[in-house]
Amino acid sequence: MDKLLYGVAYYDEYMPYDRLHEDIKMMKKAGINVVRIAESTWSTVEPQNGIYNFYHIDRVLDAMEEAEISVIIGTPTYAFPTWLAKEHPEVLAVTKSGPEIYGKRQNMDIISPAYLFHSERVIRKIIERVCNRKCVIGYQLDNETKHYDTAGKNVQQLFIKYLKEKFQNLDELNKEFGLDYWSNRINAWEDFPDVLGTINGSLGAEFEKFQRTIVEKYLGWQSDIIKEYKREDQFITHNFDFDWIGYSYGVQPKVNHFEASKCLTIAGVDIYHPTQDDLTGIEISFGGDMTRSLKGDNYLVLETEAQGFPQWVPYKGQLRLQAFSNIASGANSVMYWHWHSIHNSFETYWKGLLSHDLKENETYNEAVIIGNEFKKFGDKLVNLKKKNDVAILVSNESLTGLEWFKIDEDTNYNNVVRWMYDELYKMNIGTDFIYPLSENLEQYKVIVVPALYSAPDELLNKLNKYVKNGGHLIVSFKSGFTNEYLKVSINDQPNFISECCGVTYNQFTIPKNVKLTGFDNLTDEDKTIKTWMELLKPTTAEVISRYDHYNWKEYAAVTHNEFGQGSATYIGCRVSENALKEIYTLVLKKSGLYTNDQEFNFPIIIKHGYNMNNKKIVYYFNYSECEQKLTYIHNDGVELTSEKRIANGEEIKLSPWNLIVVEED
Amino acid sequence: MDKLLYGVAYYDEYMPYDRLHEDIKMMKKAGINVVRIAESTWSTVEPQNGIYNFYHIDRVLDAMEEAEISVIIGTPTYAFPTWLAKEHPEVLAVTKSGPEIYGKRQNMDIISPAYLFHSERVIRKIIERVCNRKCVIGYQLDNETKHYDTAGKNVQQLFIKYLKEKFQNLDELNKEFGLDYWSNRINAWEDFPDVLGTINGSLGAEFEKFQRTIVEKYLGWQSDIIKEYKREDQFITHNFDFDWIGYSYGVQPKVNHFEASKCLTIAGVDIYHPTQDDLTGIEISFGGDMTRSLKGDNYLVLETEAQGFPQWVPYKGQLRLQAFSNIASGANSVMYWHWHSIHNSFETYWKGLLSHDLKENETYNEAVIIGNEFKKFGDKLVNLKKKNDVAILVSNESLTGLEWFKIDEDTNYNNVVRWMYDELYKMNIGTDFIYPLSENLEQYKVIVVPALYSAPDELLNKLNKYVKNGGHLIVSFKSGFTNEYLKVSINDQPNFISECCGVTYNQFTIPKNVKLTGFDNLTDEDKTIKTWMELLKPTTAEVISRYDHYNWKEYAAVTHNEFGQGSATYIGCRVSENALKEIYTLVLKKSGLYTNDQEFNFPIIIKHGYNMNNKKIVYYFNYSECEQKLTYIHNDGVELTSEKRIANGEEIKLSPWNLIVVEED
Amino acid sequence: MDKLLYGVAYYDEYMPYDRLHEDIKMMKKAGINVVRIAESTWSTVEPQNGIYNFYHIDRVLDAMEEAEISVIIGTPTYAFPTWLAKEHPEVLAVTKSGPEIYGKRQNMDIISPAYLFHSERVIRKIIERVCNRKCVIGYQLDNETKHYDTAGKNVQQLFIKYLKEKFQNLDELNKEFGLDYWSNRINAWEDFPDVLGTINGSLGAEFEKFQRTIVEKYLGWQSDIIKEYKREDQFITHNFDFDWIGYSYGVQPKVNHFEASKCLTIAGVDIYHPTQDDLTGIEISFGGDMTRSLKGDNYLVLETEAQGFPQWVPYKGQLRLQAFSNIASGANSVMYWHWHSIHNSFETYWKGLLSHDLKENETYNEAVIIGNEFKKFGDKLVNLKKKNDVAILVSNESLTGLEWFKIDEDTNYNNVVRWMYDELYKMNIGTDFIYPLSENLEQYKVIVVPALYSAPDELLNKLNKYVKNGGHLIVSFKSGFTNEYLKVSINDQPNFISECCGVTYNQFTIPKNVKLTGFDNLTDEDKTIKTWMELLKPTTAEVISRYDHYNWKEYAAVTHNEFGQGSATYIGCRVSENALKEIYTLVLKKSGLYTNDQEFNFPIIIKHGYNMNNKKIVYYFNYSECEQKLTYIHNDGVELTSEKRIANGEEIKLSPWNLIVVEED
Repeated sequence: MDKLLYGVAYYDEYMPYDRLHEDIKMMKKAGINVVRIAESTWSTVEPQNGIYNFYHIDRVLDAMEEAEISVIIGTPTYAFPTWLAKEHPEVLAVTKSGPEIYGKRQNMDIISPAYLFHSERVIRKIIERVCNRKCVIGYQLDNETKHYDTAGKNVQQLFIKYLKEKFQNLDELNKEFGLDYWSNRINAWEDFPDVLGTINGSLGAEFEKFQRTIVEKYLGWQSDIIKEYKREDQFITHNFDFDWIGYSYGVQPKVNHFEASKCLTIAGVDIYHPTQDDLTGIEISFGGDMTRSLKGDNYLVLETEAQGFPQWVPYKGQLRLQAFSNIASGANSVMYWHWHSIHNSFETYWKGLLSHDLKENETYNEAVIIGNEFKKFGDKLVNLKKKNDVAILVSNESLTGLEWFKIDEDTNYNNVVRWMYDELYKMNIGTDFIYPLSENLEQYKVIVVPALYSAPDELLNKLNKYVKNGGHLIVSFKSGFTNEYLKVSINDQPNFISECCGVTYNQFTIPKNVKLTGFDNLTDEDKTIKTWMELLKPTTAEVISRYDHYNWKEYAAVTHNEFGQGSATYIGCRVSENALKEIYTLVLKKSGLYTNDQEFNFPIIIKHGYNMNNKKIVYYFNYSECEQKLTYIHNDGVELTSEKRIANGEEIKLSPWNLIVVEED
Repeated sequence: MDKLLYGVAYYDEYMPYDRLHEDIKMMKKAGINVVRIAESTWSTVEPQNGIYNFYHIDRVLDAMEEAEISVIIGTPTYAFPTWLAKEHPEVLAVTKSGPEIYGKRQNMDIISPAYLFHSERVIRKIIERVCNRKCVIGYQLDNETKHYDTAGKNVQQLFIKYLKEKFQNLDELNKEFGLDYWSNRINAWEDFPDVLGTINGSLGAEFEKFQRTIVEKYLGWQSDIIKEYKREDQFITHNFDFDWIGYSYGVQPKVNHFEASKCLTIAGVDIYHPTQDDLTGIEISFGGDMTRSLKGDNYLVLETEAQGFPQWVPYKGQLRLQAFSNIASGANSVMYWHWHSIHNSFETYWKGLLSHDLKENETYNEAVIIGNEFKKFGDKLVNLKKKNDVAILVSNESLTGLEWFKIDEDTNYNNVVRWMYDELYKMNIGTDFIYPLSENLEQYKVIVVPALYSAPDELLNKLNKYVKNGGHLIVSFKSGFTNEYLKVSINDQPNFISECCGVTYNQFTIPKNVKLTGFDNLTDEDKTIKTWMELLKPTTAEVISRYDHYNWKEYAAVTHNEFGQGSATYIGCRVSENALKEIYTLVLKKSGLYTNDQEFNFPIIIKHGYNMNNKKIVYYFNYSECEQKLTYIHNDGVELTSEKRIANGEEIKLSPWNLIVVEED
Repeated sequence: MDKLLYGVAYYDEYMPYDRLHEDIKMMKKAGINVVRIAESTWSTVEPQNGIYNFYHIDRVLDAMEEAEISVIIGTPTYAFPTWLAKEHPEVLAVTKSGPEIYGKRQNMDIISPAYLFHSERVIRKIIERVCNRKCVIGYQLDNETKHYDTAGKNVQQLFIKYLKEKFQNLDELNKEFGLDYWSNRINAWEDFPDVLGTINGSLGAEFEKFQRTIVEKYLGWQSDIIKEYKREDQFITHNFDFDWIGYSYGVQPKVNHFEASKCLTIAGVDIYHPTQDDLTGIEISFGGDMTRSLKGDNYLVLETEAQGFPQWVPYKGQLRLQAFSNIASGANSVMYWHWHSIHNSFETYWKGLLSHDLKENETYNEAVIIGNEFKKFGDKLVNLKKKNDVAILVSNESLTGLEWFKIDEDTNYNNVVRWMYDELYKMNIGTDFIYPLSENLEQYKVIVVPALYSAPDELLNKLNKYVKNGGHLIVSFKSGFTNEYLKVSINDQPNFISECCGVTYNQFTIPKNVKLTGFDNLTDEDKTIKTWMELLKPTTAEVISRYDHYNWKEYAAVTHNEFGQGSATYIGCRVSENALKEIYTLVLKKSGLYTNDQEFNFPIIIKHGYNMNNKKIVYYFNYSECEQKLTYIHNDGVELTSEKRIANGEEIKLSPWNLIVVEED
């Protein structure tokens, strides 16, 4: 990719009247150079079983080609036509809540032969038709694919075979899963009960792990079909999405992104986030860091909000701040979902660049500015390469584990991940993500480990080795507690990493009116802990903080242990953001990783990387409604938006929701 | 009707022992002159299929006739006998939650042939038996009929036929409903999916509209049966009820009262409302204004609470205040549900005039006072005629639309209706209701339009014309946004009425810390807006208020536009009650409708109208626990409860929860 | 029993590796002298239909016998094996939510023949094998048995036969249940509708009463089987549990403990309760008083928490405080659930004496202290006999009644029971429980009656007679309101006991801003009432307090009536804890029952009784984190833990969460 892609999803099918040429004119004005089409249009492309209609696809390709706008073709499989539901009701998934009913999207059994047969046929028909079109630069597989909780008898049948392959015999499975408990023991494969009823977290979580492999297979299968058609210069991507709490929040529970992205040629992502007073840039950074880490390379932002929900209409400057924030994380595209607000149905209030009147508006006007900046100096920003010293280890298995075994009613795995990530972000510490099977631990100086609840022995030993060899580990409570089958370890906790951490415990409780000792700069509120506390007893570790409580005062709360050539810091409870910041600072300073960037804090966010000319690009973002006065601390260079030179040490003012981007000399 | 009806529902069937003559004695003492019987008694009247038993009906009619108490006969169809459920389980409705189960009332499929056959037979048997009884003055069809969410295959079959009649072809339907979205397109009628699964609000809302027509047909069918029997002097009524939030709150979502009341000879209503500290009279006024508007005439209050729920036991004076408030709205009856508290089952704690001990009590004692006042001067109050200058336009379609497309989690259509109604009530502005098909717009000087979310083009044009011809329109946010199929307009918002309103917008958001400019008399809290804000740009309108917020300050919040011979005021956000009052005052003053009555405010409520002698009747109500001192501002006349003369300008005292009613000279 | 049992549940089946001898060593160190085994292990004992495996049972018995640890054998029937679910899916209960699914425990239809056949066979196989083992001292039937809401067609079939036996004919049933209402009348048994749909509380509650009899029959059936095998010296018990709100709270809704315990030779109980800052001892006392009352004798605590939930890890001293509190209530055992924390599945975080590392820990260490104290002087504490003057009358029927007819959204029967019980506890008033069929009323000087909502006439007459003969009754609101079929009385309320109470009412409401008059020592907050208020009119009673509210001021709130040789105090509203205390004090003083113990209050709790040597044992517990200085007010004796003498009048200090126990001379 040699230029930034600036784009939108475009649905000619949904238009209330023929707007194609008017739309393209408006797109050109805004510097839109790519559209994403065809996903979700199965019922227009194949109105009846085996009858095809390429009217919309053809005419959009013709027009885009003429306008020199690139096109990404989405396979249309995430929503299926009414005729298929009527002919083959079995394509509707059976989940814990019973059989799905036709209407919404993403409610199918993605291993159903009827679904796969018809999906394959319509994919081939479409790709065949478009693959040689010049404007088509790539393909998007499906849309935010997940397993949709499919759990019908056919799925469970495969699950049993999966278990048979994994375990030598039932005795081993019974033992590993602890099925003797409550008489759940399975003494013959024929007796295998409906897994949807299980109260055994080991069995239940293993089924969810199995469900995640369905997604990997499904995307791989689509990718293989497309590879039969695609040109060398065309990419295959997919728009991964995240754990959703009204916006993109954390690790996706239902897909292992690291595994599922293997079939892609470039990673892609959908990022939605709060704006207005609540715009922080965290989700842009989190989603970007995660997606960049999948293939260790640049990625595509395939969807992000334009106007979005009513509460998300961006303040002046915010759309532009968001766009450059994506690029600063290594994205090569910013694509809005979607061009025009839809006049009917479920997402009527999920507004596009255009409102329902299909005219220019304030948000569109800001897109015009962005598009023209991308055009002007995007070539200096594209393909930004980043080299981070810090990685966060995330784990689908731990996420699932902590759903079956909740920390508390209000706390799940992603809360802990975000607690640890957000503070790094706010301290301007560039971060990658790794996962349990990552082989590149040694490339990081610091690895942050949030609540690694489920971990095979090898992983824990790998962490010990990492520290021994000079790495710095920062581990939170609830790590190492169970193995890959959610069987609690019989070892001293935190299991094998008690070695590198130099600490152990065998009791834990819920803190009530418990504070940390030490941390003299913090307020009482900031010293207060919540959610969980492990009653730590150091073996070799130094105590950073103890529990300030009459009954728990003998126990450590936070410890630091020199081990081999590295160190491990263990945080045995949920400390406040400010306490966490102090702990990070301590470790960074001890490990010599504390840089000038850390002199700035949110709402001043600094990002950097190297562009294709190997020049350093530095961004300063002002994530606030206040003007910020600050000193430019990086090397002399050219501020690209103003085209003015800027010098190290220069005092600058960043207006609200504004940014500068500097190409260092 | 030449006298006020004062009555109760009477269930001889539910009595723990034979009380008939004792009850009648107590009724006579309390001035009760009408009872409502027979509804819900199917299982006693027809204990087995085709076996009838009129014991209770006969003996009650005999006794009432002797006591000169009139009787209203209810058809018994809102609850059906066990034998019918066993013989024909299909009479139980199938809803979104699955098939209903026998036990509660109002859970049947009211288009099921088995239900209709047996209903018709038992109705005919009962009406035949009673229609010539002298004491029988009218009939009540069923009870608070709704469609009970019936949505089985038979219902959906009819719905498809209804759509076929409405739309030329599927292309048109697909386009109007936007079914291309998420591949929901229906390319053959055979493919029509189960409507219960739809996520398409256009389709879903149309189904609900269709369900409302079922109610109209059902009541019409019962009415036609009764017309075969009824005497000229007997009426047919129905007890409509309202959106229920623990009490009668707003427009009924599941019935179009205007359409459904066409088959009646007199409109009827059930009104239940908070009491004690929370008694405001609003629900009595709202329900009365609505029901009076159905046929533009007096109406019957067929049910209202006596003691009601435990939290509703009236304070001293409240039962009487309520009774006269009903009459002041144009009711010709006040009938309690019910005479005696029931000793078993679901409504044991919905207490009647008598408690379970069936003796006199404080509430009954107050009824004695009311009944005797009705007897004494009720002839001066009955058939009160009202002529209001203000109407509120309500719309079932907008209500349904705003369920599919919520304003926010806490705000529905009726919240907006009540927000606009309640302030009119508190300002002592007499109000009628109209609906989208009303032809009498021109009879009103002001039309208030809350959240007219779904409106066909004709309706919006009718409103433009209304203003052009001299009417004054007060329109809230969310009006005109979609057509009758919930398809968002592609026009400038608020669609066609942007013409009369002289304002337009294409962006909107959720206010956070946003205030109104102007309104200098209001507190900061009262200036604060909530729920929704449209970013208004006036075309010809004058700005009454802008948004006080750094990012939105360029946009108007409230505008006023002179258009033709009238004016239109547009309120683009949910303003506080006090701000709304200021807006109303402004419009009333501009349009010359501000009267002396507006010098009083809640808790002093003023109502008036003209009695059969064409004399003006004026009520002053004190809806508070404090004594109120005030000046009588109407014409000289006789205060009827005290039988004393009262003169314009006279200082009076209204004790807590008390009233005066004056017949002007 | 001649010694205190100190024990644990032990599951050899769940152990991650062979630990038996190591575990026994640790048990011996802690003075553990009994284990509970075999419950819930059906799938290991009978891995396939008719194939048995006694490996775990045999080896545990061998080892325990050798170690001189006694064993209680649980029947394994509360969870059943997968093969049974596959062969006979009908063993899964059908409830209001539909058919149960395999996985959790206690989801079977306990009248299903397949379940009963297989249960009986496996019980016989196990008991046959163990009954002659020396170490086996008794049997536990099933586990916390309830009816699991079983309500399939077979259950309903039996229910109809039960009704046929109870009622002469349908007319009588229709009348008693008020089925005419809403056309629910049943005119032929063949028409009997699915009871799960009923909205008739009389019918619904009767079904629940019937369901409770299922439990009685089921436990009786298991008991009869065991009696065929058991030795004279072996007991039969069952671990009853309580209404659960995250801990053991109140009367069990789904079992009539009094009836169900008849088949046992000794009553048993599971008690779980909050600890740490929330440890009050109330649940220990409540559960103990209830279970002791079942057979009027000592009982077994078969399960209580060791570490329990994370939030329950006991503070120093609490485990010991709890253990002695159980003994002080008359328990002859303290048995933890369970020995070791489980490494998989549902109760992983319900921790035992040992954590998952199976090593010693703080909680285990405290158990060592307790066990050795039990060993040292347990013979002086065992078989403690208590003679209380106060009893609380509890009623399953009233509990069910107040579920069908809620007092308010937040208040159920057990809230009222606990409101009345807790204050007695805090005042150090020893309490028994009685139930409607108890014959021993006369043995109590005071009977406290919380919300006896459902009561047959005989019971109310029995209460009148009790008072007449010199008893003192303290009755709360909502008593006597309905008969045994939840039919509201037509008498003056509170029905027949209005006689002894000398008070009546026929109206009631929900208090808003209502206070009590009098009670001059109370704060305004403590004078404020909530939840419910009856508008009392004294007939012969003296008014203790009226309602302080402008509209209700004429009515009494609390009354006291001398009647015959006794008195009845009626509390017509939910008064504050402090007001209740004043009322109790008043009655106790009037009836001469106020003792020195009442000079102490929670957190100082005093319990006593007589040991096997007929010596008085007195406990003082400090339920607080503060040291308490107090005067020892009982007779001279020996403090057993310190082995020091203590004299009446001596000043002592009780450290936090500590106790003394004195054997009086």
